[in-house]
Amino acid sequence: MVRGIPMRGESCKLFFRTDPIKIVKAKGQYMYDETGVKYLDCMNNVAHVGHCDETVVNAATTQMAILNTNNRFLHDNLVLCAKRLTATLPEPLSVCYFVNSGSEANDLALRIARAYTKQYDVICLEHAYHGHLSSLIDISPYKYEVGKFPKKEWVHVAAIPDSYRGKYRGGNTEEMGELYAKEVEKLVADAEADGRKIGAFIAESAPSCGGQILFPPGYLKQVYKCVRKAGGVCIADEVQVGFGRVGKHWWAFELQDVVPDIITVGKSMGNGHPVSAVITTKEISMAFKDNGMEYFNTFGGNPVSCAAALSVMEVVERDGLSQHAAEVGDYTIALLNELKEKHRTIGDVRGVGLFIGVELVEDKETREPATALAQHVITMLKENKILMSSDGPDRNVLKLKPPMVFNKQDADLVVKILDEILTDVED
Amino acid sequence: MVRGIPMRGESCKLFFRTDPIKIVKAKGQYMYDETGVKYLDCMNNVAHVGHCDETVVNAATTQMAILNTNNRFLHDNLVLCAKRLTATLPEPLSVCYFVNSGSEANDLALRIARAYTKQYDVICLEHAYHGHLSSLIDISPYKYEVGKFPKKEWVHVAAIPDSYRGKYRGGNTEEMGELYAKEVEKLVADAEADGRKIGAFIAESAPSCGGQILFPPGYLKQVYKCVRKAGGVCIADEVQVGFGRVGKHWWAFELQDVVPDIITVGKSMGNGHPVSAVITTKEISMAFKDNGMEYFNTFGGNPVSCAAALSVMEVVERDGLSQHAAEVGDYTIALLNELKEKHRTIGDVRGVGLFIGVELVEDKETREPATALAQHVITMLKENKILMSSDGPDRNVLKLKPPMVFNKQDADLVVKILDEILTDVED
Repeated sequence: MVRGIPMRGESCKLFFRTDPIKIVKAKGQYMYDETGVKYLDCMNNVAHVGHCDETVVNAATTQMAILNTNNRFLHDNLVLCAKRLTATLPEPLSVCYFVNSGSEANDLALRIARAYTKQYDVICLEHAYHGHLSSLIDISPYKYEVGKFPKKEWVHVAAIPDSYRGKYRGGNTEEMGELYAKEVEKLVADAEADGRKIGAFIAESAPSCGGQILFPPGYLKQVYKCVRKAGGVCIADEVQVGFGRVGKHWWAFELQDVVPDIITVGKSMGNGHPVSAVITTKEISMAFKDNGMEYFNTFGGNPVSCAAALSVMEVVERDGLSQHAAEVGDYTIALLNELKEKHRTIGDVRGVGLFIGVELVEDKETREPATALAQHVITMLKENKILMSSDGPDRNVLKLKPPMVFNKQDADLVVKILDEILTDVED
Repeated sequence: MVRGIPMRGESCKLFFRTDPIKIVKAKGQYMYDETGVKYLDCMNNVAHVGHCDETVVNAATTQMAILNTNNRFLHDNLVLCAKRLTATLPEPLSVCYFVNSGSEANDLALRIARAYTKQYDVICLEHAYHGHLSSLIDISPYKYEVGKFPKKEWVHVAAIPDSYRGKYRGGNTEEMGELYAKEVEKLVADAEADGRKIGAFIAESAPSCGGQILFPPGYLKQVYKCVRKAGGVCIADEVQVGFGRVGKHWWAFELQDVVPDIITVGKSMGNGHPVSAVITTKEISMAFKDNGMEYFNTFGGNPVSCAAALSVMEVVERDGLSQHAAEVGDYTIALLNELKEKHRTIGDVRGVGLFIGVELVEDKETREPATALAQHVITMLKENKILMSSDGPDRNVLKLKPPMVFNKQDADLVVKILDEILTDVED
């Protein structure tokens, strides 16, 4: 039956392109290749509560054998999932739309925002990535850099509030928060002067592809105020950072003490099962309804997807994974800060919970990004059976975003090996 | 923990809105409500090889317990799935992109088409539906009718080749095929006269939401020729009609003896599991790669999704479901044609395999659509434990698109009950 050598699209890239890994099984924070070699996984933020978690697998597989159909029939799982999800959110965020991916969620969020505000334009951040769909590539400057895609006139790109490498540099202070928020205020004013109307501001609550950035204090509060004054709504993209990853809080927007109008969730939500969601207020959802167009998503909110999502939330709570992320994150960041003192190539260590970035530089003074070094470190980590990726506009930020069961012993190992690699390089 | 009454988006509609059904389990072509009542399912084309098919459930659940991660690692399932899928397709269609829904597939198809042709405009059909994403609503006139969405200038809507109710009426003849194809030729000429360039023609290979339409002979052949001459590519949306539903053929485009440049598949592909795909030629995929933008889809092509899709293809072949669909379809259509002779309210019976439409009319001469009657029939069928939906621009076409295990006894029952309902009404 097999007729030749079919291919997957050449635009789809592998990790470790020159020497890719064939992973055949995974459990917890570990992945195993076809020869039985065990890798510590620091990159898979989708396997949120651990690869192949027993509770999640049981919930999804049990439901799969009983019923898997669309949400035009009533089913308890959808209701339970919506209840459990909205219970983690501040009061007005009470209406859920279930979809299949973070991209579908962000696209729907834009549609809902525009239906409510009747305003079309969108503000996003530099280096932002919000998904692979046509509508999202437009607001994902992360994707522009390697391509040839001119910015659409309805897109307004604000300076990323990166107080280490961004337009303003001065650490995680309120002054930085205000300076970067004023950038958004200026964008809004300029757009309005051009007769344009801002429908939405969208940002990851902590920019990940941008280089594991934490917003300086007060940033989102001032931005949200300005965007709402202009008639727009505020969308928090929690696809990569939600569900307890930042420790102590369920959601990364809570770090900024704001309440978004719409949030989008994905990736971690089903521990690998394709399930995502948009959550908004009753008022906004009614405006979307009143535009007269039914919304139907074939697989969205099916009983299996909801069973997976429900069980992920159950495990996060049952095992105290958010608190665990806070503790292990603090521990890891402290170790990495010690390394920073020791190594001239570590420019910055930042993060919260199990969302951590280590920025490599050629020189601590000039902050020249050490892009090639970062690639070397990633390769050497892989030689040492540790899977990690780098990101940020210069690809020089080591990203730690492991499954949430990552523990202090794992952190010890990563820091020890990183120490050895950097010592070798710097000698 | 549960804190109030959360809601799902009001834009999401239930079947049987005034008296919705709570389905708790399903097997084969049957669904069961919470009181144990058994329904014959004539509407769920997603549960393609039967609800909760044991082979598919086993394949997906086994893989789920072993590994579920993204396609940046090598994995056999992705390769096997791409091989099996492309083996069903004519030679040049050899490159697969795996995504999570038919909507994601159609959005990606548009992106790929535009990268290849460097032309932006799209031709779609009247009453077409290609998905719920921003980019697809624009080319889904099915959605315009109830909303307030002005057609974008880059969208060109061709007359639907419905030779019963469309612009030209005359049955399934080559003359009809030519007349409707000329409509597309005219659109292309008009667009070019306006200085616009056609990047793609997209159509379901048999329009479903448009009212279970079969293209007249020669239609796609002439349309494809004209679109390609204009520098555009031809996209066959097989999301609802693929994987053997039309009987004898794997793909509905084969009914028209054409080879598309891009096909999109979804719904039935994973028997309910969120998996879909875009398949195109090497040449077109290279152009997409050459635009310099990597394509990554978090859940797309993961080992679980591929296991589900693989097992669906296995069951379709193993159980000869395509041949079964052809036989049961012929049998059902013959019975329905007998009913048509007997009942003044049946205007047209059409279809192929288990893709069948029964068009209800007030009057066979004027062909006035019997919209209210269709709703009454759907309700009465439900009373008789048969689940069916209606569609088409006037919602007067009863749609049969059951799981492919639907058999002759099921057909007997549906036709018997439909006969009784129409006899009652007509008396």
